[in-house]
Amino acid sequence: MSKTKVSIKDIAQKAGVSTALVSYVLNGKEKESRVGQEIALKVKQIATELNYQPSHLAKSLRSGKTHTIGLIIADISNPFFANIARVVEDEAKRNGYTVIIGSSDENADKSRDLLDVLINRQVDGFIIVSAEDSKEQIQLLLDKHIPFVLLDRYFPEIPTDFVSTDHYRASYDAGTHLIRNQYQRIGMIAYDSQLFHMQERIRGYQDALRDSKVTGQEHWLKRIKINAIDAGVKAAIDTMLAADEPVDALLFATYSLAVSGLKHINSLGIKVPDDLGIVSFGQAEVFELYYCPITYLKQPIVLLGQTAVELLVKKLTHKSTEPAQILMKAELIERASSKTKKSVVT
Amino acid sequence: MSKTKVSIKDIAQKAGVSTALVSYVLNGKEKESRVGQEIALKVKQIATELNYQPSHLAKSLRSGKTHTIGLIIADISNPFFANIARVVEDEAKRNGYTVIIGSSDENADKSRDLLDVLINRQVDGFIIVSAEDSKEQIQLLLDKHIPFVLLDRYFPEIPTDFVSTDHYRASYDAGTHLIRNQYQRIGMIAYDSQLFHMQERIRGYQDALRDSKVTGQEHWLKRIKINAIDAGVKAAIDTMLAADEPVDALLFATYSLAVSGLKHINSLGIKVPDDLGIVSFGQAEVFELYYCPITYLKQPIVLLGQTAVELLVKKLTHKSTEPAQILMKAELIERASSKTKKSVVT
Repeated sequence: MSKTKVSIKDIAQKAGVSTALVSYVLNGKEKESRVGQEIALKVKQIATELNYQPSHLAKSLRSGKTHTIGLIIADISNPFFANIARVVEDEAKRNGYTVIIGSSDENADKSRDLLDVLINRQVDGFIIVSAEDSKEQIQLLLDKHIPFVLLDRYFPEIPTDFVSTDHYRASYDAGTHLIRNQYQRIGMIAYDSQLFHMQERIRGYQDALRDSKVTGQEHWLKRIKINAIDAGVKAAIDTMLAADEPVDALLFATYSLAVSGLKHINSLGIKVPDDLGIVSFGQAEVFELYYCPITYLKQPIVLLGQTAVELLVKKLTHKSTEPAQILMKAELIERASSKTKKSVVT
Repeated sequence: MSKTKVSIKDIAQKAGVSTALVSYVLNGKEKESRVGQEIALKVKQIATELNYQPSHLAKSLRSGKTHTIGLIIADISNPFFANIARVVEDEAKRNGYTVIIGSSDENADKSRDLLDVLINRQVDGFIIVSAEDSKEQIQLLLDKHIPFVLLDRYFPEIPTDFVSTDHYRASYDAGTHLIRNQYQRIGMIAYDSQLFHMQERIRGYQDALRDSKVTGQEHWLKRIKINAIDAGVKAAIDTMLAADEPVDALLFATYSLAVSGLKHINSLGIKVPDDLGIVSFGQAEVFELYYCPITYLKQPIVLLGQTAVELLVKKLTHKSTEPAQILMKAELIERASSKTKKSVVT
């Protein structure tokens, strides 16, 4: 509890040896430096007695290893990312790493700031859920040979390590499921985003319709600006329902879109699934506790997080050279919100 | 995009001046060092051309300021903390600070690791949501004169800065509200925790009953172990309902307890509020989208987060000396889950 920090010099003084010798011992180099066992033990005991805390900062500058992973997530207030952060932390701890988290809030500038701050604090490597417009940052990390693994979102044109859900296939499965359950006019609400995972989710939906010989209409697909979700979702749903042939089912491309949509649907008095079938990406308690439990695409959060840590640790310990690119399957959890539509006489 | 980092030496060479001069200029000390304006400008231009990145690490060692705040939250997968983290980040950014987050997962060892890691990476100060058994760590930070502000949870016996909800009063309001709405046997499910905020929530509930001349029974208050929430909540609810005089309303001390409880209540086919009135701490979309919207204690997340940053920045810029201890009021948001009980002929 003393205010002054214990230094190597203090230990050296008390042990009656040189500071160099103390340094050798505390860095585990007593053998190379031919320090006697007895002296080494004494130094360690004194260090413990004095509650000596090695300066990681100084240590990092020497060894270049901090055993710290920087995790950049796209939005900490999104439960998908918050839960995956928890998995990454647990798995990192098992591997002897501490995780420092930064949230880019889907903002490329903030993402760049965070990368700079964490690089300068010398994390050993990164796990990154990329934000919009952050492609150049990722390319720069690659050019600088900074070890990293992309999580959930990746750039197909950059040869990086990544672990991701197969977003295309997940969306395709959701669309096919709704068609099989007799829904005929299936809409999708997605983000207006250049990010590849969002493009893939849209493509999967479109291909599911095409492969089932359903001709999608323009008002069935709506792209919402991420900075005005509630207003965008409200307008999208209103348009989709006011059309001559209103949609009878909706696929939400993210959890946040679904929550916003369900609130609006409730306020309109629309009944799920009789008036409108629902499937959403992402998993959350809210889907289970909604009056009509929501069918969702369950992303393999635990496996995604664990594999990302595993790949990064392999890179950090030089056990891997080739980029590993892993796609995992999302599981469609069928609940009441997309159950087979009652036949309607038309 | 070059692989080798541009150094002060490179700039000095290109400018035809000494490295010391470059260092003066790039650290904004050209005036004290009597460097000519023209030379200073040239050095800055070359630094920009070469895309020179100052090493924050080296810079920190000199200036002792990093403009980085360490935020330690108790559990990143809890939406209350995830949302407050987002507020802290936004407010910190407005003040020119970057936030690095660590999650202690309600574990004192992990909390200590994170504090060590972040202190050694020289954050300027901390905002901390304390984990169980972390009191000594907080005392140590105080002894070491490391600037910090406690958020949401504090230790009444340690004179620290803190911003917190008035947990006692919130719980008291919830209990009084249920009694006023004709509930007669009000149970509470809380954590088995020594943390002061949890003690205060329990005390508020007990005082609300006492002040309304309701004699609480032993089986009305259950304390759940945090590492086995679902099993604990299930057992608690089963006991409370199987008693001779079963509870007719439940106050959940946290969001996580409520979600677990609502799942179990659903599986039992119990109807809210007719069979059981519900009030919960915390806010979440799930409360709004539940078939019977849940009455909750809305904590002032934005104000809590902003005030914590404000207090810390004041400390960091030496504008404040006395500890600031701020309690904020939670607002009871009345929804259908606790509406006035229908009179029952007994």
